[in-house]
Amino acid sequence: MATFTIGIDYGTNSVRALVVDAKNGAELASCVVNYPSGKQGVLLDARDHHLARQHPGDYLLGLEKSVTGAIRAAKKNRGFDAKDVVGIGVDSTGSSPLPVDKNNKPLGLQGKWRKNLAAQCWLWKDHTSHREAAEITRQATLHRPQYIAKCGNTYSSEWFWSKIWHCLKVAPDVFNAAESWVELADYIPSVLAGVTEPRQIVRGVCCAGHKALYSDEWGGLPDKEFLALLDPKLAALRDRLYARAHDASESAGTLGAEWAKKLGLPAGIPIAIGEMDVHYGAIGSGVDEGTLVKVIGTSTCDCGVVSAEKKVPDIPGICGIVKGAILPGYYGIEAGQSAVGDIFKWWVEVVCAGNDKTHAKFTAEAEKLKPGQSGLLALDWNNGNRTVLVDQLLTGLLVGQTLYTTPAEIYRALIEGTAFGARAIIERIRDYGVPIDRIVCAGGIAEKNGLLMQIYADVTGCEMRVAGSSQACALGGAVAAAVLAGVHPNFAAAQKKMTSLKPKRYKPDAARRKVYEKLYALYLQLHDAFGGVKKEADLSGVMKELIRLKEEANR
Amino acid sequence: MATFTIGIDYGTNSVRALVVDAKNGAELASCVVNYPSGKQGVLLDARDHHLARQHPGDYLLGLEKSVTGAIRAAKKNRGFDAKDVVGIGVDSTGSSPLPVDKNNKPLGLQGKWRKNLAAQCWLWKDHTSHREAAEITRQATLHRPQYIAKCGNTYSSEWFWSKIWHCLKVAPDVFNAAESWVELADYIPSVLAGVTEPRQIVRGVCCAGHKALYSDEWGGLPDKEFLALLDPKLAALRDRLYARAHDASESAGTLGAEWAKKLGLPAGIPIAIGEMDVHYGAIGSGVDEGTLVKVIGTSTCDCGVVSAEKKVPDIPGICGIVKGAILPGYYGIEAGQSAVGDIFKWWVEVVCAGNDKTHAKFTAEAEKLKPGQSGLLALDWNNGNRTVLVDQLLTGLLVGQTLYTTPAEIYRALIEGTAFGARAIIERIRDYGVPIDRIVCAGGIAEKNGLLMQIYADVTGCEMRVAGSSQACALGGAVAAAVLAGVHPNFAAAQKKMTSLKPKRYKPDAARRKVYEKLYALYLQLHDAFGGVKKEADLSGVMKELIRLKEEANR
Repeated sequence: MATFTIGIDYGTNSVRALVVDAKNGAELASCVVNYPSGKQGVLLDARDHHLARQHPGDYLLGLEKSVTGAIRAAKKNRGFDAKDVVGIGVDSTGSSPLPVDKNNKPLGLQGKWRKNLAAQCWLWKDHTSHREAAEITRQATLHRPQYIAKCGNTYSSEWFWSKIWHCLKVAPDVFNAAESWVELADYIPSVLAGVTEPRQIVRGVCCAGHKALYSDEWGGLPDKEFLALLDPKLAALRDRLYARAHDASESAGTLGAEWAKKLGLPAGIPIAIGEMDVHYGAIGSGVDEGTLVKVIGTSTCDCGVVSAEKKVPDIPGICGIVKGAILPGYYGIEAGQSAVGDIFKWWVEVVCAGNDKTHAKFTAEAEKLKPGQSGLLALDWNNGNRTVLVDQLLTGLLVGQTLYTTPAEIYRALIEGTAFGARAIIERIRDYGVPIDRIVCAGGIAEKNGLLMQIYADVTGCEMRVAGSSQACALGGAVAAAVLAGVHPNFAAAQKKMTSLKPKRYKPDAARRKVYEKLYALYLQLHDAFGGVKKEADLSGVMKELIRLKEEANR
Repeated sequence: MATFTIGIDYGTNSVRALVVDAKNGAELASCVVNYPSGKQGVLLDARDHHLARQHPGDYLLGLEKSVTGAIRAAKKNRGFDAKDVVGIGVDSTGSSPLPVDKNNKPLGLQGKWRKNLAAQCWLWKDHTSHREAAEITRQATLHRPQYIAKCGNTYSSEWFWSKIWHCLKVAPDVFNAAESWVELADYIPSVLAGVTEPRQIVRGVCCAGHKALYSDEWGGLPDKEFLALLDPKLAALRDRLYARAHDASESAGTLGAEWAKKLGLPAGIPIAIGEMDVHYGAIGSGVDEGTLVKVIGTSTCDCGVVSAEKKVPDIPGICGIVKGAILPGYYGIEAGQSAVGDIFKWWVEVVCAGNDKTHAKFTAEAEKLKPGQSGLLALDWNNGNRTVLVDQLLTGLLVGQTLYTTPAEIYRALIEGTAFGARAIIERIRDYGVPIDRIVCAGGIAEKNGLLMQIYADVTGCEMRVAGSSQACALGGAVAAAVLAGVHPNFAAAQKKMTSLKPKRYKPDAARRKVYEKLYALYLQLHDAFGGVKKEADLSGVMKELIRLKEEANR
């Protein structure tokens, strides 16, 4: 008998549901629903570019519409029957926490708070809490160095405690009205399971470990004494959060009657533990020891795993090393770049007032350029630097412009900038003894942008592969659901059957690599000078070396 | 009886003739002719953005068409008669030297050389000879420090000897075929005067002193021993150039029969000595001691004068301090920025694929921004830095971009970048004891771009005024011609009668100035780090300070 699982992937602008054959990973149908609120689903504040929120109502609307839409489409396949769906897996962006009341109802859905930006979901890329992040880093460095040793010694403004503390400061009424705070990745499974009390939510160690300083080593969340150093109200909140978090070998619950009916699925089927999109994306891309999975989208997340039986050193600047965060039985290692696709989108749409055709035009022109030929060099920090500097108060930089510099040259320089940022991450991870033998990329950009993939190969010196599924995150959720439902004995077996790679291989070219070595050295100079790694920088040769490389490329 | 003079102004893209009432400076008529060759009159090489040449045929065609066109238009005025024209003054871009044969005929007009880029006029902004410039600087530093002490201790790739030496290296056939080389500003008067032998050209001290290391202090052009250090062929060329150069109290000759007929003007009227456009522009804008005239166009030239009876110190990084270069009896001080209008044009037309409407749109949006509000900071070096770094191998830089940065914000940041560059020049000149009490701007940008003028006032802390004439350079030539023809007893009297200021005053605003002080401090950090002034720069605070100023502006 055929069995099916459904992966549900909450992205930055939309939610996608994917119906999968649980035996072989074949994708029967999917449905995407764009969030209706704000600008492409994101609530913004024109006066503060750090702010990014989402309306929780969009999530529930999207849940119902995407799943029912995917099932409706799956029914066009002979052999599919919704009653044969045996499990659901959910992933989302993160850290994207939202405040809920004592009935597990988001404040943002309630009349009084509906228009209050602080009562909505605080989207991963919200950087309003950079002051709180810096203070958490400072206090942890002084009093609990172990807390942040596993997240690169720097706590981020993108994360759980920074955001909640900032809410307490700028919107105390919202903070006081919140019974608890829950990551979107945990909230959706709790909705499906019919949880009506925040303490009953089964939380994933993925978000807990990577974003909320949770570890079994110190008994779960940060202790109350430490939290009281920040604010006594945060210490009090700890009791209203959770004592334990779980890896993907456990279930987040079973599908409750209300949502079984809404979705037309069997009640009682298991719901996989919620993970962050990129972590399930890593699973859906076949992550294993030695493989770095890069999920390239608006931003990039880099995921690797190392057996939990080994000892993994703390790696400075790496977002997190958390046991069980991706695959049960492994340490999950997460790094990332705060903006990648978003930078290209900004350049094409905001600056050049273009569209998809403009992307294609710039790509065609940029493909004709040799490395170094534009004379340009860019830092990829338009949304800050997540790894390895962990500093959201960094910004973009472009150098080398002449009076003849074209928008396509800048487009290529921006791609190259993100490639250099990717390389900085790979080198940092390798420097600490974690092997990276192959790179698998997932996401639309990896599939569509051959120019970017080739540049990444030439800049990093690694062969680049693309995940077989275009919906690797959702597929990862479906894999987790399939393991949970007993279709496969474990994740390794499930990944082998359910995931694949595209045949195309992007191999580094020796000549181009040589030029990129020189450009990367210049990138590092800028990176260290503006990123504060080096306080006595000699940048007097940067522009001249760029001109020299340009002349060489033009010869 | 009414008397008239004609000023002829050779710009980068076109030539303009202006008919003026010699008594009061009233402008009767003018005529502009665009150079027909190349891209907007400039011959380019797609493989080398440093190259910029012009076809000499465009100059002669433009001479005839612009003067006859202006006379034709002037005739619509009652009381104008071409026979009452009493003098002609010519200015041009510089250093723009061209090779001529023994009959004073440009090589570029001759069959064999017509398509050879090296045989054309080497336009001021041609930077192909940066290696030669560096070597001239090095040799002069070692052997003739006095030669370059008056041009900021750095010889430029934009100047006479660099260009000719580069020609000798890359196109020896052209060099060998040239009897002499002549600046465009001297060449046109020689054509009008019917000079048929290069040694007979009356050369202006303006180009000679500022661009060719000429000074009476050391007996004219650089000595042959020094030139032989560069190349013996340059030493040999010295004999075929000129022994003396002249200020504007002397005449470049009188109008010969051939061109008198072509132009419909009386033969035998005096032709003023040729000066560079901005120097006659300074005269046409009313330059005197204490006034800095900024001619703002594609690039910017800053001109000041100090009585020749005083002692003017050598000022590091200032392009030139030359006796008689602007006004007879005064030292002329010249500084400048290699690109100003060109940068805005590049941004709007090349990057944003826009036009005049786009300029207007960006200006309207940029006007709404407060200083610091964009979080952006730009270096104004897209075409190198003429003053005070004297380094053409510098390039543009933009820092502070987020994912929301708009093209209008960047447009404003680019204007601000040029304002900071302007301030660096003013401060350098003042630092060496030359007073600057008022700033008068000339050129289309000064007249049309109130946003730029206000930003310049706020950044420099000086009241900004605009020259009364829209054609200050051509007017300056007409002033020189009027003095030469005896209509006025001297330049001061002529300027008083013939030049004016527009009523509008741009006054610095205290609040905006305060923010610009902080931004200027950041600009100087980047300036010194990338310009090589400081080899141990701490740039770790730049991005954070920009974000802080942005937050302050948004409060």
